[in-house]
Amino acid sequence: MKINKFLNPKYVAVVGASSDSTKVGRKIFDNLILNKKTKVFPINNKEKKIAGFLAYQDINNLPIKDWGGLLVIIAIPAKFVLDEIIKCSKLGIKNFVIISAGFKEVGGLGFKMEKDILSLAQKENLNILGPNCLGFINNNISLNATFSNFFPDKKNIRKNNIAFLSQSGAIGSAVLDWVANKNIGLSYFISLGNKAVLNENDFFEYFYQDKKTDLIVAYLEEISQGPRFLELVSKISKTKPVAILKTGKTEAGSKMASSHTGSLAGSHEITLLALKKTGVIILENINELYNLMRLVRGPIKDIPGKLAIVSNAGGPAVLATDEVSLQKMSLANFSSETKNDLKKNLPIFANIKNPLDILGDAGPDRFAQSLKLVLKDKNVSSVLILLTPQSMTQVEATAEVIGKIKSENKEKDIVTCFLGGVEIAKGKKILAKYLVPNFDSLEEAIGLLNKIENYKNNRKKIKKYIRQLDSNKDFSKDSGVVDYLKSFQLLKDFNIKNVPTKKIDWENIKTEQLKKIKYPIAIKFVGPDFLHKTDKKAIFLNINKESEIKEIINNFKNRILSKKISDQNYIVYQPMLESNLELILGMKRDAVFGPIILLGLGGIYAEVYKDTVMELVSASRDDIKKMLSSLKIYPILTGTRGQKGINIDKLVETIFNFSKIASSYNNILEIDINPLFVNEKTIIAADIRVITK
Amino acid sequence: MKINKFLNPKYVAVVGASSDSTKVGRKIFDNLILNKKTKVFPINNKEKKIAGFLAYQDINNLPIKDWGGLLVIIAIPAKFVLDEIIKCSKLGIKNFVIISAGFKEVGGLGFKMEKDILSLAQKENLNILGPNCLGFINNNISLNATFSNFFPDKKNIRKNNIAFLSQSGAIGSAVLDWVANKNIGLSYFISLGNKAVLNENDFFEYFYQDKKTDLIVAYLEEISQGPRFLELVSKISKTKPVAILKTGKTEAGSKMASSHTGSLAGSHEITLLALKKTGVIILENINELYNLMRLVRGPIKDIPGKLAIVSNAGGPAVLATDEVSLQKMSLANFSSETKNDLKKNLPIFANIKNPLDILGDAGPDRFAQSLKLVLKDKNVSSVLILLTPQSMTQVEATAEVIGKIKSENKEKDIVTCFLGGVEIAKGKKILAKYLVPNFDSLEEAIGLLNKIENYKNNRKKIKKYIRQLDSNKDFSKDSGVVDYLKSFQLLKDFNIKNVPTKKIDWENIKTEQLKKIKYPIAIKFVGPDFLHKTDKKAIFLNINKESEIKEIINNFKNRILSKKISDQNYIVYQPMLESNLELILGMKRDAVFGPIILLGLGGIYAEVYKDTVMELVSASRDDIKKMLSSLKIYPILTGTRGQKGINIDKLVETIFNFSKIASSYNNILEIDINPLFVNEKTIIAADIRVITK
Repeated sequence: MKINKFLNPKYVAVVGASSDSTKVGRKIFDNLILNKKTKVFPINNKEKKIAGFLAYQDINNLPIKDWGGLLVIIAIPAKFVLDEIIKCSKLGIKNFVIISAGFKEVGGLGFKMEKDILSLAQKENLNILGPNCLGFINNNISLNATFSNFFPDKKNIRKNNIAFLSQSGAIGSAVLDWVANKNIGLSYFISLGNKAVLNENDFFEYFYQDKKTDLIVAYLEEISQGPRFLELVSKISKTKPVAILKTGKTEAGSKMASSHTGSLAGSHEITLLALKKTGVIILENINELYNLMRLVRGPIKDIPGKLAIVSNAGGPAVLATDEVSLQKMSLANFSSETKNDLKKNLPIFANIKNPLDILGDAGPDRFAQSLKLVLKDKNVSSVLILLTPQSMTQVEATAEVIGKIKSENKEKDIVTCFLGGVEIAKGKKILAKYLVPNFDSLEEAIGLLNKIENYKNNRKKIKKYIRQLDSNKDFSKDSGVVDYLKSFQLLKDFNIKNVPTKKIDWENIKTEQLKKIKYPIAIKFVGPDFLHKTDKKAIFLNINKESEIKEIINNFKNRILSKKISDQNYIVYQPMLESNLELILGMKRDAVFGPIILLGLGGIYAEVYKDTVMELVSASRDDIKKMLSSLKIYPILTGTRGQKGINIDKLVETIFNFSKIASSYNNILEIDINPLFVNEKTIIAADIRVITK
Repeated sequence: MKINKFLNPKYVAVVGASSDSTKVGRKIFDNLILNKKTKVFPINNKEKKIAGFLAYQDINNLPIKDWGGLLVIIAIPAKFVLDEIIKCSKLGIKNFVIISAGFKEVGGLGFKMEKDILSLAQKENLNILGPNCLGFINNNISLNATFSNFFPDKKNIRKNNIAFLSQSGAIGSAVLDWVANKNIGLSYFISLGNKAVLNENDFFEYFYQDKKTDLIVAYLEEISQGPRFLELVSKISKTKPVAILKTGKTEAGSKMASSHTGSLAGSHEITLLALKKTGVIILENINELYNLMRLVRGPIKDIPGKLAIVSNAGGPAVLATDEVSLQKMSLANFSSETKNDLKKNLPIFANIKNPLDILGDAGPDRFAQSLKLVLKDKNVSSVLILLTPQSMTQVEATAEVIGKIKSENKEKDIVTCFLGGVEIAKGKKILAKYLVPNFDSLEEAIGLLNKIENYKNNRKKIKKYIRQLDSNKDFSKDSGVVDYLKSFQLLKDFNIKNVPTKKIDWENIKTEQLKKIKYPIAIKFVGPDFLHKTDKKAIFLNINKESEIKEIINNFKNRILSKKISDQNYIVYQPMLESNLELILGMKRDAVFGPIILLGLGGIYAEVYKDTVMELVSASRDDIKKMLSSLKIYPILTGTRGQKGINIDKLVETIFNFSKIASSYNNILEIDINPLFVNEKTIIAADIRVITK
């Protein structure tokens, strides 16, 4: 394991430790010495003693032999960092945390210094966390190698089972402050910083093997090494959940992130597409992150069944029903046995369904009976209890019975949503004692339970993602827009049909060529000046006679002669095809996840309805079929209301072939087939644009 | 004011008061006597003394003369309630609260009893709250006429300025429990129950006039008297905000609500349409309701400018930027003066933009300076401060300076989002002391500030809604589907063009008629058996010759002869019109808000893209123009990329005329024009269906 020694060092040295207690280096030192097992050395070339410890002038002076077992934490100005690492590296030291800021995130010289550190790390095989980070915590060995306050809960009755990584130091600090005294078992905290060398994937690999970790949670502003990430996370998700809060949902957010950590975030839409393939739990905000941490106390098991909701009030049950329905979640159907038992135990007015309203006068006994009956039902995997403090409600006694039932039923999740303030507060304390997670918002409770439910269902279906090696073939040596007819030839090479397209020799038009033409035809001006043909008035449809052709040729000639366009452009014609359905098929390369294919409705509605789907080029034919079915227009493609559908199999094959182009030629940046005519017989490209790097 | 005496009674009598302290009637009595000003009488035909008070056997025995000043609270079994009210009514008592359940919500006899109470109330002009409710609180006179615990905050340093109404007793209880000790100034609490007689509108009318009330908040499962509601709320919103949490967002939720209070909720989509017209603040969940109550401390004033965000960390600033962008909110642009001042005061690395990242080492002074500079900016109306506890952060001292600045700047809203746990808790206490609302979720903070911002902007534009009187004209005496040609005539009467449509005398087809036909034509079977023509194979397009017509007539004859269809059906033909754009124009009556018009894309894409908009029939031509522009297809209607648009003015006129049909004839339930052909010249109906009550 590459980072085993990094996370579990025998010794730690702090370069930049100081007797000035306001300095970051000192704060780290203070945190480190709280741990009794790992030996810690302060390094400072001016001071003799730091916090009562003997200070070393230089790393060379340390009284150790096993340099491979030493972790060096660097908290000195950026400009001195590289030299320090070079010196350490010569001693055989492999593991570093760079706390110092002033690297990539400030641009310019900082950017260069970070690059130099990366080169050194690659050459010497160094593990470096940061720069511009808080450090890390390994709570299993009580090692706080950060300058943050962390209060591991001494009385924690939960296992330390959650690994948390944060690309933002501030979010990291907030989460560390939040978990304190909350019975939340944090096993590791990693502040990723600029991710110059070590990134989330290195830690994911470690946490995958780590038996103590049941849940991996990460706050990320950009994802590193897209393909490696996909391969890893789709593997991990099979056994333990990885939950990610990814910022940059919007363009504005991405820009803000980039000015903050110098990250290059890629498109959020593509990120979501990729994340969904891995079975990751996608978190929307910090509250969801907190709530997930509260909920996951051990390995997530496969309990069959669905959610049951028990409420002592109609209003909250209505709100819950709305939310369940909005989330497209489905609730458990109670078995007839459960229904009968509930009928016997509940007042006659009670309506036996899910959500189950056990009525406003429900006391602790009725709560207990209902909860036990519902838990017994095989169709039920988890229970959400809604309580509002009404005149007959005994909040504390009810919390007590729920807690007791919870401690006797460890298999099925029981969570509560006690709505209110003063009366409710006493109940919440009791629930906390029994480790029953209580939510202040029923929407948050339902949202989270739904995410976990979806995770459980999805993980069985996650396909192992296999990283494709980049092709080292190039399509052509030129960069920019590929010649129009060559582009069509590229499609042909990959078995994609295109509308027969012939060049018109405009300088020397021959009557015999004109005679051979079968009308009607479409004429197009193509070449570097006609990337956007409609805007440039370069498409002429339904041309029916020679005189029209000649007029169009004159139009083109005039543009050439007046030097409005270059003479690299030329004229082509195609037969007019009847098609009432036009699609767009495209490919582009994402900065993080590589080539992506995009399929969407074409024609005049394309821009208003934006009905598009994306896929990774690694998609199988089955994936492509699924991709098609998530288009809104899918029912029309398959045929609806007496209308014939299109040839779906051929379309799938076309897209599958198309995806091979991107993986075959590394330098193709973008392809656009627009329109792609589709009908019941054939799938045929009518226009194309290919751009190379 | 109709309910002035109801809310401010001189005396209160509790029918069903009891010495048994577990009884609801006793709990109400105990709550009432906490108030020292209003005289309270317990009424019980078996007991002599209740809680030390002399009990009266019968309402007749009360030692009072001003029966109009008496409020009677009834907490006896449902079956005795009507007789009690009759008895009271004879004495001249006008004001009642019925606590008892067992009415409409249980159906059957309960439904009938509630109807009888309503009849009596209408006849005798009685104010009755409930049945099936908690009662009400008038906190201005310290009158708690409910059986709920309510802890008015004795130390409340806020004005009691919020009126809260709840159709759910449980949600009401939860909110009462939540406001306790929170410095939230509740002026009134109304538990609406089944709304047999008094409903939200009666109270809205009162709170509109009430100078103490700055904010009206309601939890509603159904809206009562749609048109009255619209008229009232659009008037109130001009001066004070009305915020509504409306359940039944989904069909499942509506069903749950209906089984819970017997409400008939109407369509949520139409409810939202109507609510938006009134300028109401639409709340999504209870958390938003709580948060709004915390925020609104006085009248909402028109401070020009937009939101500024100040953060001591990049991560939260990125999350905030995402959220602002998702909410389509825009942030303040700092003036160049502010920018210069900030530059002078912030470290050189700081990026001067909004959100403003004042960096992780910001101490209280930097927070204070930045906040003051930003507040001074004319482009800023409110400030959100994000704080995470980093190593240099002084949480308490920062909270203190924010609080002080807040108390010196009452005009502009200052809210905070301190993210974390232990360290943060101390800061939150200080913020609470200064009445600075702190949010645990930055998404919630931004969401709420955005809603208030939108309210302020919208209220200037709210048009007074004028209730239209129902027409008492009927279109025809028959109920059901209106004859096809008569339906087209109805359109003509309202100046809506239709495709010329002629009957074919199928029993006796004349050659001369056939000779006159200009081909191509469309033939349709119409009548009661052909409501859905496509499904019933009743449309024949592009008919080009006599032989085809004869074949179609035979098809029809066979259906008649085999009695598959009735002989009320007949055959029509229309010229084939070229149209590449088909719309659907419809009208239906909503249970709550009355007639609604609906416009949408027609043709094969109608069902896949569901591109539709709705409007109230009271819409002006301007409203209809706006309605059009919110269709996704609008850019195509106006013309795009060289394509000609359609005649928008004629379309507006057509819809305007169409909306008059619904208000002219009371018994028309539904109209569907599908398709409505639209092009650059004309707007013309090609098919129609009209249904009467």
